[in-house]
Parts: sequence; C-alpha cells; structure tokens
Amino acid sequence: MSGSETKPLLITQGDPAGVGLELTLKAWQHREKFALSPFALVADPSHLASLVQHLQWDVPIREVSENTILSTFDQALPVIPLNSKVRARPGHPDPATALSTLESIETSVALALAGKISGIVTNPVAKYVLLEAGFQHRGSDEFITTLVEKHLNKPVRSVLLLWSDLLSVVPVTTDVPLTDVPLCLTSELIVNTASIVAKDLVKRFGINRPRLAITGLNPHAGENGGLGTEDRDIIAPAITLLRRRNIDARGPYSADSLFHERARSGYDAALAMYHDQALIPIRTLAVDSAVNVTLGLPLVRVAPSHGTAFDIAGRGTANAYNLISAIRLAAKLVKTENIN
Amino acid sequence: MSGSETKPLLITQGDPAGVGLELTLKAWQHREKFALSPFALVADPSHLASLVQHLQWDVPIREVSENTILSTFDQALPVIPLNSKVRARPGHPDPATALSTLESIETSVALALAGKISGIVTNPVAKYVLLEAGFQHRGSDEFITTLVEKHLNKPVRSVLLLWSDLLSVVPVTTDVPLTDVPLCLTSELIVNTASIVAKDLVKRFGINRPRLAITGLNPHAGENGGLGTEDRDIIAPAITLLRRRNIDARGPYSADSLFHERARSGYDAALAMYHDQALIPIRTLAVDSAVNVTLGLPLVRVAPSHGTAFDIAGRGTANAYNLISAIRLAAKLVKTENIN
Repeated sequence: MSGSETKPLLITQGDPAGVGLELTLKAWQHREKFALSPFALVADPSHLASLVQHLQWDVPIREVSENTILSTFDQALPVIPLNSKVRARPGHPDPATALSTLESIETSVALALAGKISGIVTNPVAKYVLLEAGFQHRGSDEFITTLVEKHLNKPVRSVLLLWSDLLSVVPVTTDVPLTDVPLCLTSELIVNTASIVAKDLVKRFGINRPRLAITGLNPHAGENGGLGTEDRDIIAPAITLLRRRNIDARGPYSADSLFHERARSGYDAALAMYHDQALIPIRTLAVDSAVNVTLGLPLVRVAPSHGTAFDIAGRGTANAYNLISAIRLAAKLVKTENIN
Repeated sequence: MSGSETKPLLITQGDPAGVGLELTLKAWQHREKFALSPFALVADPSHLASLVQHLQWDVPIREVSENTILSTFDQALPVIPLNSKVRARPGHPDPATALSTLESIETSVALALAGKISGIVTNPVAKYVLLEAGFQHRGSDEFITTLVEKHLNKPVRSVLLLWSDLLSVVPVTTDVPLTDVPLCLTSELIVNTASIVAKDLVKRFGINRPRLAITGLNPHAGENGGLGTEDRDIIAPAITLLRRRNIDARGPYSADSLFHERARSGYDAALAMYHDQALIPIRTLAVDSAVNVTLGLPLVRVAPSHGTAFDIAGRGTANAYNLISAIRLAAKLVKTENIN
C-alpha cells in the first residue's frame, strides 16, 4: 500500500441550489454501509450548516485543511472552506453563486495537481447559471480541463467515459446537433479518442490489453457504403490505424447489435459516434448507477450522471446512490493507478 | 369466441437457404410447450421433406389447403404447396429461389385478404438475393405493402413496430444514412406515423387510449434550440397537432432518458426519429425476443427480428425462440382484433 492511497477524495460543491450538497451529506451518513473512502466537501461551511439545519439531519460538519480530512472523516463531514460566502436557497438557482461553484472546482483541482488529495468527484452544475454569470465554461468537465491546461501550460484533450457495472461507453462527438455529427467526425478524432481511452483503461482501470468496440455511424454500419459512407471512409480507416498502433480496436459494428448482454462481453469499452448512440444504451441499462469519468487528465475525476435537480432540491428526498457510485469508482481508479 | 378466431396463421418460406424453414419445423415441434395457435407453412413440400431428411428430425409434413390446416396441425406440419419447385442448399443463397420466396408471400397475402387465414408470420429473406433476381422489393414488408396496395387499388402507408415484452418502439425514418435523417424528417411524417401507430395499438393491441412517447432528434431534445432546431420546429408542432386530434402524444423527450424501466412505464409505444435511436434500446433490452410487426395494413403481419443466418443454416442449431415469439404475438393480435 503506497502512501498516496491514504489521501482523501474531494467533492465539489456543485450548484448550491441543486441537490449536490444534500446528496453529499447523505453519502457521508452512508459512509460505513458503502465502505466509502474518506472525502471532504469543498464548500462554504456556514451555508452547509444552514442546509443541515433546514433538513434537520444529524450530520456534524467540521472545517478542515487538506491535512486533517482523514482524522476527521469518522466523526464529522470534513469541509474545506471556500473564500466565497454562499447564499443559496434550494431550488432557486442564482448567478451570484456561480463564483463559489467555480472556486470549489478550482480549489479541488489545485489540491489534486499538488498531490495533496487523490481524486475529485464533482457535484452537478447548471451550465446556464454559469453562462448568466458571464462564465464561458460548458460544465465542470471543460473547466477542469482548462485549469489543467493552464497548470501544464499545454493543450490537453479530455474524454468523457460513461461507466457502469454493465457497460462503459465513450461518445466520440459530444453535445452537437445531430446534423453536425457527420461533419465533426474525422478519423483523427476517433484515433485520438480511442488512444486516450485505451491508455486510461490500462492505467486507471487496470485492464491489461483493453478491447475497444467501435460503432458505425449509419444503420448496420452503412452496409458497405449502401447506407452511408462514413463507416467505410472515416471509421474503418481509424480502426486500421489504431490496430497498427497495437490498440485492440474492433469494428465498425452496427450500433444496434453492440449493447445486449452477449455483445457486451466482447469488449471493455465501446466508442459510439455521437451523444444518443452512447447515452441511450447506458441509461437504458443503468440509469441509476452510471457515472461520468473524465479520461486524459493527470487527475482522477468522476461525476454522478444526474443534474442539479432543482425541482426537488432542499427536500432531502434525492437519491444519493449515483453520487455514492461516483465516490466508490473514484476511489477504485486512484487505487489502481497507485498500484500500476 | 368468434368464428374467425379459429382461422390458422400462415408462415412464409423466407429464403429457403436460410434458417427460416428449419425454425418453422422446430416451432411446430414445440407447438404444445408454447401453446402455439395452428399454422401452416407456405412452401414446396418436397423441398421441405428433403430438409427434414437432411436434419434427421421427426417432423411429419402434410400437404393441405387453407381449409384443412386446423384438422392437420396436431398430427403433422401443414404445408400449403407453392407452384414453384424449390432447389436450395442451406447456407447457399441462390437468386433462382427468389421467385418461390415471393410466391410464398403472395399466396399468404392473398389468403389473408380473402379472409381465409388470420394472419401472416414471415420468415427472413435476403434483400440482395431478391435484388440479384431482378426484384425491386426491399424486403417482405415492402412487398406485402405493394400487394395490399394492388388489392385495395390505393396507396397504403405501413409502419414497422418493434415489439417486445419490455418495449415497443417505432422508427419514424428507417433505413437512411444518418446524414439524411434530418432531411427526411417532417411534421407530416411524424403525425402520419403516430396516427397509424395509435390506431393499431387500439385495434390490434387492445390498448384503449395508447400513450405515445416521442423522442427528440438532437441530444437532450435540442435544449430549446441550443443543440439543434428540429425538436422545436418539426417534432414539437407534430405533437401539438396529434394532441389536437385527440392522440395522447408526449414529448419531444431526450432519447437517452426514455428507455430505462421507470420511463418505459409511462407510455405504450415510443416513436424514435431514426434507426439506431429505435433499434439500440430494444435490442439492448430484448435482442432474443423482439419481433417486428407491420402496422397500417388490413392484415396481421409479424416477423422475427433476426435475418436469414446463412452461416448456420442447415445445422439445426438456430434458436426458434424469436420465431415462436412472432407466432405467439401474431395470434394475440388476431384475437384482439376479433374481439374489438
């Protein structure tokens, strides 16, 4: 057991009007039941205290530094305080809170890059709240990548992996209109994405020689050009190139035949060409347990797959299972990386 | 119990080099175990006899007319003979057999339209074999629709429903390259498709007021135009129109959130905008049991969802479960229609 395995995880605040904070309180309450690794929340302790009071939950919280998280975790939820003071009413998103939401991410990333903590789990943010506050980041994911680029002083490509016990899948293009998908798709993008996935499956997931299944873009992977040409002209050449680089990439497969139980046993991760092609199968199979992992970064980052859920925030009814899955996976990825 | 409930089903030959014939033999063997309604196969009896001999199975076959199917079914597999003589080796598709494949469909449709039989289950055909033989039909589905149009002397729009115990889903556009999907999608097409689905869910599935869930085309159904405009400009107006016509259509929904268990309990059938959006969820959930139903026709037609499987034809190893599911559903649809 290496020293770094005993470093804690950090959980970011997320949008303070969303369910993130109350789910973190719940996760801490369930820490023994789910054998959760020690973590601290990066938030405003007085705002958090008022939320605990509002919920009338028995969760002691304690302000800590990165060095006192481990010794605190058993007795109280450790909180690394923000400089920003947070005023937020559950269910009432407010651009005035955007700065604190981002500060929480910045603090966590800085501590991870400095080797003080082991990995980050991010609570959900609302993109439109950040945009209204004048920030250009499309989400935690992109903001973290920007921070890492600044730190490393070079461009970084991060890749989103959707993970569950039943399926791991990566959308090669992400949030673009369907019309733009064929325009965004290049062999280079596929090769680049698959290379990052293959590397992190070895390093973080401990899979010795990961098998990547690549979908076609068109129905039945284009039927040899009869139903679209991208499968033959863009995707197949990318797979050839990947295999030359000794990456076990296979396909292009008809996407409709790739996600049933027998098919899934043939690969470690699937690369899908666009949002719905990746998200439909994993959310059909594992809507409550699937979590998001950012690959390609020099730090472990996992996030629950749900959103801020403003409509139920503050009631204490939101289900913490997804956040707990994210915490468990983050701990596992850190552990694997340390062994490797 | 009305008189027509006791009419038999017909099963078409399909490509005689594929697995269709041997699966039909198996289905007849399992007729008691699965409580299958009486059916006859429309095929060449001597070709079928040679296949039985090849497989060394104990399946008596008997030539019948449409009037003697019911009295025969318990003792032997009833076969309505084709005029075409069939010579086919399992696993060796041959354009010379295309005529018999189509004759089997034509005979079945004629008997169905004449009210002599209750419904049709079609065995798989290979489109390319039909094309090589000079036929323009893209499959049994399209050929049946053409025959019905000829009979009714007016254009008919048929709609493919993918059915399983867990999910019923209809692709609004079908086999087109992904690039063409946005071009093919119109409000009229959606309204027309949904109207046919709603009508047949009442008539054949016995659902009093069917609930239709309509997907968006873009990620998250376009996020109010931020991620594509078709959801707002094409799909939403179609839903408004459908509701004005008293059809319970809902959406557009983010397709990735529509197919998990809780979501599925909220509707009777989903309409997806394109092939993979419909096929991925149903084949992920029910690859072995999902079958295809043609809606919008004046006859019941169900088909297994697998293909000709030339690679394993003639071995007797192909799984008949999907064909049996198709036979069972066809019988159920006929029964419901007769009660209504």
